[in-house]
Amino acid sequence: MSITKSHLEECHERIKKHIHLTPVLTSRLVDKIAGANLFFKCENFQRMGAFKMRGAVNAILQIDEENRKKGVITHSSGNFAQALSLAAKSIGVPAYIVMPSNAPRVKINAVKEYGGNITICPATLEDRVKTTEALRIETGATFIHPSNNLDVIIGEGTAAKELLENQPNLDIIVTPVGGGGLIAGTALAAKFYGDLCLVIGGEPKEADDAYRSLISGKIETNTSTNTIADGLKTNLGDINFPIIQNNVEKIIRVEEKEIINALRLIWERMKIVVEPSSAVALAAVLKEPNTFKGKNVGIVISGGNVDFGFDSTQNTP
Amino acid sequence: MSITKSHLEECHERIKKHIHLTPVLTSRLVDKIAGANLFFKCENFQRMGAFKMRGAVNAILQIDEENRKKGVITHSSGNFAQALSLAAKSIGVPAYIVMPSNAPRVKINAVKEYGGNITICPATLEDRVKTTEALRIETGATFIHPSNNLDVIIGEGTAAKELLENQPNLDIIVTPVGGGGLIAGTALAAKFYGDLCLVIGGEPKEADDAYRSLISGKIETNTSTNTIADGLKTNLGDINFPIIQNNVEKIIRVEEKEIINALRLIWERMKIVVEPSSAVALAAVLKEPNTFKGKNVGIVISGGNVDFGFDSTQNTP
Repeated sequence: MSITKSHLEECHERIKKHIHLTPVLTSRLVDKIAGANLFFKCENFQRMGAFKMRGAVNAILQIDEENRKKGVITHSSGNFAQALSLAAKSIGVPAYIVMPSNAPRVKINAVKEYGGNITICPATLEDRVKTTEALRIETGATFIHPSNNLDVIIGEGTAAKELLENQPNLDIIVTPVGGGGLIAGTALAAKFYGDLCLVIGGEPKEADDAYRSLISGKIETNTSTNTIADGLKTNLGDINFPIIQNNVEKIIRVEEKEIINALRLIWERMKIVVEPSSAVALAAVLKEPNTFKGKNVGIVISGGNVDFGFDSTQNTP
Repeated sequence: MSITKSHLEECHERIKKHIHLTPVLTSRLVDKIAGANLFFKCENFQRMGAFKMRGAVNAILQIDEENRKKGVITHSSGNFAQALSLAAKSIGVPAYIVMPSNAPRVKINAVKEYGGNITICPATLEDRVKTTEALRIETGATFIHPSNNLDVIIGEGTAAKELLENQPNLDIIVTPVGGGGLIAGTALAAKFYGDLCLVIGGEPKEADDAYRSLISGKIETNTSTNTIADGLKTNLGDINFPIIQNNVEKIIRVEEKEIINALRLIWERMKIVVEPSSAVALAAVLKEPNTFKGKNVGIVISGGNVDFGFDSTQNTP
């Protein structure tokens, strides 16, 4: 299937009532540090706290009505589990979420809060696949992959579409790279709505599968993923990889220390809570000042779900 | 001097080009927890990260031109030191800041960054007063108290003025109470711009001088100040206390645990970085649900200067 501008148009219309139009923030101080004009598309203020809400809503709404009633199913221990749960609730269908037994309690609680039906499975890839498949057959729910799904990719591209509608003169958009859904969707949006706008990815050196995949020309996997950017440990897939290959300028790898610096810069100076994964995009901009010098640069802040070591919902009245 | 509505009008016009019009944020989730409609006036997004910028700018602009050239002087280890430095820089006059030798390095660096001339003194009240007075005589600078100064109070009242212009139907505005400048200014704004809008203070139980002052009818002081809300350790003064006595409905005291709960609720759910002092206002709302139930409640988020244990400016290019 060849993606056209009207796919993004129609998608955006379809999902609009289920998502927030998130703000675009700027910071004179961070601009000064970066030597560029930065425009932060704040998906940390998106519903459930991340861009993944866009992809989840679109994927559900693309299922025909009869099948949609049977619900949707995915396996995720991260933001997509919450996104699919809240999207399904918002649309009025059941969501089945398979989570590994080692998933943090705060993530499990969040999925519950959004109404997801949780099945806990042993924390191996094999068990996850087996459990998901059995549950899919039992419920008749439609499986939605967190990032390697064209409807998810197009849905997630609407963040960059909104960013370009707000700032049409961007030279570059930078996103973090994890499973590849966000950067693939962003690349499509930049192609259709940008004016020669390039897309660059930021990736932790500790989980640099996408960087290596672009060099080798085939999907590489992460062997270790020792990074604070826990949303970026996943690998590319066969649906998003070709889009990335054809439309992404390059991927900049950053060290853990650089991610932490960028994270604290955003927390302390911009006064917004973003996930470590989100800071990877700013870290990439700071890493290669010559690439971005004097340019208008969009940065997609992917999400803001941070656990400050405490489940505040349990202690407030 | 009797304060009228035109004092606030004129002040707001005077300071406008030196301050940000900060956003008013809402959260359906926090509303649900509070059982009220909350409108957060986000002074964490103010220049230098706190409402004190408003008071500092106004106080400087009220000095006649000849004296203004000689500069301004204050003693503070907190946000007012930064506010006076940046306000003076913005207006183009020198700022002399007396800081105790035990002030955190990150605060000293911030004052330097904003162009303040720092004098370090021993960390006793006596030394602070002596050092400030000597420097005042030497420089001819005008002393500006961080909270017990009418121009500071009126300047800080413009935050609530903006909030009421955005949300005219507020029943109550809640602010944290430290030195008393913010709540006094807020009370004036509520009187002139509100429609029977009450003002309530939130105060840490560990530094409850204002609560006790309202009961005894005279200015009480804190003997111990063992609170995470480090901006609220100061005492009321003879200029702001009568305004508070006449115009503030009541003060609600909150425990440290309640402050931390409210803080994490704001960080984790609203995705904004606020100071512990700011969370005291929300903690007060959550503490007395019957007072606020179903009401339209404004909450002044006083600031967002949090040190996440790391001076990020030193490690970014």
